[in-house]
Amino acid sequence: MQFTKAVITVAGKNQRTLPLQSLVDRDGVTKTALAIIIGEALSAGIEEIGLVVAPGDQETFRVAAGAHAGRLRFIEQPAPLGYGHAVWCARDFVAGAPFLLLVGDHLYVSTAESGCARQLLEVARTADTAVSAVQATHESKLPFYGAVGGRRVPTHPGCYEVSDVLEKPTPTEAEQRLVVPGLRAGHYLCFFGMHALTPGVMEVLGEQVEVRGREGGIHLSTALNLLARRERYLAFEAQGRRYDIGARYGLLTAQLALALEGADREEVLSGLLELLAQRAR
Amino acid sequence: MQFTKAVITVAGKNQRTLPLQSLVDRDGVTKTALAIIIGEALSAGIEEIGLVVAPGDQETFRVAAGAHAGRLRFIEQPAPLGYGHAVWCARDFVAGAPFLLLVGDHLYVSTAESGCARQLLEVARTADTAVSAVQATHESKLPFYGAVGGRRVPTHPGCYEVSDVLEKPTPTEAEQRLVVPGLRAGHYLCFFGMHALTPGVMEVLGEQVEVRGREGGIHLSTALNLLARRERYLAFEAQGRRYDIGARYGLLTAQLALALEGADREEVLSGLLELLAQRAR
Repeated sequence: MQFTKAVITVAGKNQRTLPLQSLVDRDGVTKTALAIIIGEALSAGIEEIGLVVAPGDQETFRVAAGAHAGRLRFIEQPAPLGYGHAVWCARDFVAGAPFLLLVGDHLYVSTAESGCARQLLEVARTADTAVSAVQATHESKLPFYGAVGGRRVPTHPGCYEVSDVLEKPTPTEAEQRLVVPGLRAGHYLCFFGMHALTPGVMEVLGEQVEVRGREGGIHLSTALNLLARRERYLAFEAQGRRYDIGARYGLLTAQLALALEGADREEVLSGLLELLAQRAR
Repeated sequence: MQFTKAVITVAGKNQRTLPLQSLVDRDGVTKTALAIIIGEALSAGIEEIGLVVAPGDQETFRVAAGAHAGRLRFIEQPAPLGYGHAVWCARDFVAGAPFLLLVGDHLYVSTAESGCARQLLEVARTADTAVSAVQATHESKLPFYGAVGGRRVPTHPGCYEVSDVLEKPTPTEAEQRLVVPGLRAGHYLCFFGMHALTPGVMEVLGEQVEVRGREGGIHLSTALNLLARRERYLAFEAQGRRYDIGARYGLLTAQLALALEGADREEVLSGLLELLAQRAR
């Protein structure tokens, strides 16, 4: 399975300005969050990116993409009918090929040699199945994420065969359906905002759109739960951390994480100390 | 002298996206930099704000102003002819009244009871003259700022009577014209990005525009240097710090400074330690 296309969604109501925020990347260059996300995809071998935008946002995001603008194909989501619907809008763009799916408001700092998206695509290529990146997450954070249940795949380190997918499960639902043997107690495998998907997902999403029509509320998690029943579908614990820039102080945390891993580590640490010292005076 | 109007400039080429950046303010609320700057003006008693924008940017900034959008009057700078020209574009808006002038890419953290803009306007009201806020700045930073020469006003603490204003002076120019008795060696009074101005400034700017016409390069510092020759004009060391969000890591530094002075101090400090600890693992 070869991945040359990525879909990035930036059409969500609370998401439209986040990819436009400015950060200094690990290479010391000031970029928008969007440019950093696109860079993550390109460094994983992606060649072409379908950006799902709210109507009229094309020009803003073209500017925000900077040097990468030539890689973008714009796809309008005509109405806010859910994340699953946004992905489905990219069906003609992916045209039956497997694709990398990223969100426009998460940044990643890998703790391995290669980036998180690259790690994910390598697993998907080797296993020849759909794979979602996940992170073992404390149950207190279940209200914020989609989560999966399943069991370890002995042949693929860090991989789980997914049996169930639930969006923002309650603690009871999680305990009944998502407990994964071998994880720390009270921890679940929550989505990382990054998926390597097969064309099968578009089919499932298409069926949901047909049933729900203009009602909306078309969730990716629902589609992935159905996918797990139709084809082999894995979850993979990527080596790295995700930073949700839409969280409170999310931009601050992401910027610090990038800077502490990057070329400007010393400069940023000393600036930090200076700031703390000023206040102490 | 009463101040009810402020002019904020956001038309500069490298400045147009900075006021749109998102930060958590000292009150713990996520806002754009523009909304924080407008808040600074309103808390100083300003009622109406003339926002000088590049053509077509009105709607973007109206959205970015959030709850304060009703206080805005939009003023187009038709062409990028310099900062002085941007200010002059607001002449009909200020209509012969004194006004507070702010830039769209600086944030302030006061170390006194009242905000920096409020401190400045109090000095201007008491002294009944134009006053620019300044900060004693090391000579190595002269290439980034406008700077003033003058001498202390014994009756007004923290105030200087301005004799000269130079934009980005060379060390030699600074030594010849801007040495201020009583400042630390190697330090000069550099602009803080905040001025309380009299209608006299608009007259001087109008003369410059007439002479230079469409050529551009119309600098506020040049106008203020002429103003110092026509009317009494003070500089005032505000109690507080300015954060230039356009500098490298400027947003990070400003966000940390706001957070460390604000309601979320503990939360942000512990998040910082967590991040440093993660990396040490």
